[in-house]
Amino acid sequence: MKESAGKRIQHRLSGRKAKHVRDSQVEMTEIVLPNDTNALGTLHGGKLMSWLDIAASIAASRHCNRVAVTASVDELNFLHPIYVGEAVILRASVNRVFRTSMEVGVKVMSENLLTGEVKHANSAYLTFVAIDRKRRPVLCPPIIPQTAEEIRRYEEALRRRQLRLQHKV
Amino acid sequence: MKESAGKRIQHRLSGRKAKHVRDSQVEMTEIVLPNDTNALGTLHGGKLMSWLDIAASIAASRHCNRVAVTASVDELNFLHPIYVGEAVILRASVNRVFRTSMEVGVKVMSENLLTGEVKHANSAYLTFVAIDRKRRPVLCPPIIPQTAEEIRRYEEALRRRQLRLQHKV
Amino acid sequence: MKESAGKRIQHRLSGRKAKHVRDSQVEMTEIVLPNDTNALGTLHGGKLMSWLDIAASIAASRHCNRVAVTASVDELNFLHPIYVGEAVILRASVNRVFRTSMEVGVKVMSENLLTGEVKHANSAYLTFVAIDRKRRPVLCPPIIPQTAEEIRRYEEALRRRQLRLQHKV
Amino acid sequence: MKESAGKRIQHRLSGRKAKHVRDSQVEMTEIVLPNDTNALGTLHGGKLMSWLDIAASIAASRHCNRVAVTASVDELNFLHPIYVGEAVILRASVNRVFRTSMEVGVKVMSENLLTGEVKHANSAYLTFVAIDRKRRPVLCPPIIPQTAEEIRRYEEALRRRQLRLQHKV
Amino acid sequence: MKESAGKRIQHRLSGRKAKHVRDSQVEMTEIVLPNDTNALGTLHGGKLMSWLDIAASIAASRHCNRVAVTASVDELNFLHPIYVGEAVILRASVNRVFRTSMEVGVKVMSENLLTGEVKHANSAYLTFVAIDRKRRPVLCPPIIPQTAEEIRRYEEALRRRQLRLQHKV
Amino acid sequence: MKESAGKRIQHRLSGRKAKHVRDSQVEMTEIVLPNDTNALGTLHGGKLMSWLDIAASIAASRHCNRVAVTASVDELNFLHPIYVGEAVILRASVNRVFRTSMEVGVKVMSENLLTGEVKHANSAYLTFVAIDRKRRPVLCPPIIPQTAEEIRRYEEALRRRQLRLQHKV
Repeated sequence: MKESAGKRIQHRLSGRKAKHVRDSQVEMTEIVLPNDTNALGTLHGGKLMSWLDIAASIAASRHCNRVAVTASVDELNFLHPIYVGEAVILRASVNRVFRTSMEVGVKVMSENLLTGEVKHANSAYLTFVAIDRKRRPVLCPPIIPQTAEEIRRYEEALRRRQLRLQHKV
Repeated sequence: MKESAGKRIQHRLSGRKAKHVRDSQVEMTEIVLPNDTNALGTLHGGKLMSWLDIAASIAASRHCNRVAVTASVDELNFLHPIYVGEAVILRASVNRVFRTSMEVGVKVMSENLLTGEVKHANSAYLTFVAIDRKRRPVLCPPIIPQTAEEIRRYEEALRRRQLRLQHKV
Repeated sequence: MKESAGKRIQHRLSGRKAKHVRDSQVEMTEIVLPNDTNALGTLHGGKLMSWLDIAASIAASRHCNRVAVTASVDELNFLHPIYVGEAVILRASVNRVFRTSMEVGVKVMSENLLTGEVKHANSAYLTFVAIDRKRRPVLCPPIIPQTAEEIRRYEEALRRRQLRLQHKV
Repeated sequence: MKESAGKRIQHRLSGRKAKHVRDSQVEMTEIVLPNDTNALGTLHGGKLMSWLDIAASIAASRHCNRVAVTASVDELNFLHPIYVGEAVILRASVNRVFRTSMEVGVKVMSENLLTGEVKHANSAYLTFVAIDRKRRPVLCPPIIPQTAEEIRRYEEALRRRQLRLQHKV
Repeated sequence: MKESAGKRIQHRLSGRKAKHVRDSQVEMTEIVLPNDTNALGTLHGGKLMSWLDIAASIAASRHCNRVAVTASVDELNFLHPIYVGEAVILRASVNRVFRTSMEVGVKVMSENLLTGEVKHANSAYLTFVAIDRKRRPVLCPPIIPQTAEEIRRYEEALRRRQLRLQHKV
Repeated sequence: MKESAGKRIQHRLSGRKAKHVRDSQVEMTEIVLPNDTNALGTLHGGKLMSWLDIAASIAASRHCNRVAVTASVDELNFLHPIYVGEAVILRASVNRVFRTSMEVGVKVMSENLLTGEVKHANSAYLTFVAIDRKRRPVLCPPIIPQTAEEIRRYEEALRRRQLRLQHKV
């Protein structure tokens, strides 16, 4: 599977200068404040979505050196409550580039700073489009997955994209 | 199809006091402020997601008279850019109740107040779980769809739920 | 009384395209967050005033398709405390147009989502002026009150305006 | 007039320890930020009302050493637009005490820091009620006006109160 | 010592119109809100620093009628915890002008409004540079210290500046 | 020098379970929003200070699994303007532990996402104290510097502490 991935990557490299995944990775750390929580002191899903979008848009923009706008967000599942005062760590990577759009994956961990307990709160996939000053989509540089993990995500991003296109039919 | 919907609704009515869709509908109007926008003056996807979650959670909470926490959000597509200074109108309705969870649909319109132009920006489906003070899921009152539109959404909510459960496998 | 209202409305219709009250009505729903409250957990009057102004300015702007700036706010009375976590529902309507200014009425309800109890928290009257890009006042379209309630508000708006002009002497 | 004022003050001094006006005066300085302004870059009326309420509530709370909640706000007139980047200076004084309530006056100046131009933007009168932990109104210490200005405001506060009570009939 | 101060002031007066310290003094009052505090309900140091910078920058900008940007902040010590609901009073004065830069001193008091207890929370010294539209440093008007306190601060500001310059070596 | 550092570290290891520097390192990424900037579109120093404090306090709290409060901040120099829309990346590490206090170093980079240009904006040193529920200082676990860089910072932290103590005399 790695070889076929390798071929496709070669193909995409022609023309624009390719970049590595690590060149645009984003780490973001936030603290859950009282205003971000409901009556039981747990983080609103919407606040987490807002952070997901910021982390992912920085990764997308850093990769293509353009303003990148959110085109879609895949189904999100909230696995655990996150409590007021906990830290939320978001790691965003560009998984794959599709001409003018990019899939960005974000992994979210929550951490209780007083106990050190860390939980996997959420994994999200967002699609961004790179645009110019006149809001026209522009070509993004290809991305080169290197580690086994990056290659796996690169492969899966294609399958997720095919699924998204099916949904639009 | 309406008859089978009618039967299922009857079945669910036993026990808890049923409510109508309109009893918990929420309308929310927001103005896009400079801090909500990117370098090209358009609304961040994440800010819109945050509003979606607030509108939907009020509808869910109003229906079940409980704290309602976001369990999942279906795939979201952002159809048009929304500009700074525009109004965003969100209408949230509880589409269907599944014991302790509810699907809430939110329709988002953006409006240029200076031209009067109104656009359909987004439609979203979120699932909420009603919980008690100890964070245990609690049964929600059944919902009674009445209009043709409400019945259509009620039917579709079941299909979307089946799709969500498949995704989790 | 309805007839004399009808005559005056006819008179105002000449020239600019009249609109109905419902065309610019605004519904806004907010949740009281911890930062909006005092040491006893109740909503600051100033936060409620800020929401009043936003709801009313959207209605005014939607009616005249212009930037609308707050010229005055009538005496406000805060009838009940509103608690953290409660929903606040604001409904704003343009009551009457006076050439370049409009009176907007806002009715505020607070709702305890856990009990379903709804209270009338406040009624406010704000006057807005429609302005162009150079901040010059511009004529607003006339408004056509239709329901008995709208006609009552239309009549009362004139009396309130006369009172305001007396205060300025 | 000063003598009659003096008598009434004497009367009120019995029992609780009186304080001077200057003991609770508040000065607040804010900068108008982009999010506080409309499409033409001028401060929303509602934001100014929110600042008015904060400044006045600190003065009221400082006078009575209690949580003080907003009971009413007199008619407000917005005299001039205030622009983004300008400073807003609010000075709040307790004008008079009426058993469990206080009238607080706030004078608002706007200042263009680049030209030094200062304008009188607004004068507002707010009534606060001092409450205890169980939200019951509590007696406030009497206030002693000293300067000619303070005595004038003390006198006028009574007239404004009589007007407010008339409005409630 | 006052005489030598007098001479140096004379020297600086040539050319630009000098101003007094009181002409640009700023008083700012803030309330500590839940979002500004940690899990034990005390104000974050960073929030206080943010207020310090705003108060000082208004004083600097008011003195030179220019945009003033923060160049440095001297060592800060946080003497006491400040609790949620307390008032924070910041008083900023331009201590001395050095051609295109100014030292601004800010004294911070915290006040428990329910007990009347006032504490000295902090004293800070910040250096600002006045800049024009193209971000070039511009000469500031000289400042004339008048009271004994102002003259002491004026003298000390020079010593602190010499220390800062040493640190940069 | 490394040997003497080694000895001192050994000494401190007795009793509490030591941790490595990387166990508590924090990376935080923020975007400069319009409300964070002055009239020339550059980041307020105070906003940057607020972010510095948040990043550093998370590192401190993560190291000692306690609430950590800011005790002091060393002199700060702002080297370059940071513009609206740029990303700000903050990396915080616990440099050294002194019984109940910790020095945390934060390195701040600013990044223009459209050009990829990255600048060193700032380096800051903050001291935090770990406290328990009753606000009493508590012992922190020792820290073990491992890389050459970590050992250099560990050494320098002691010198900076001696300087701070001198200042307090």
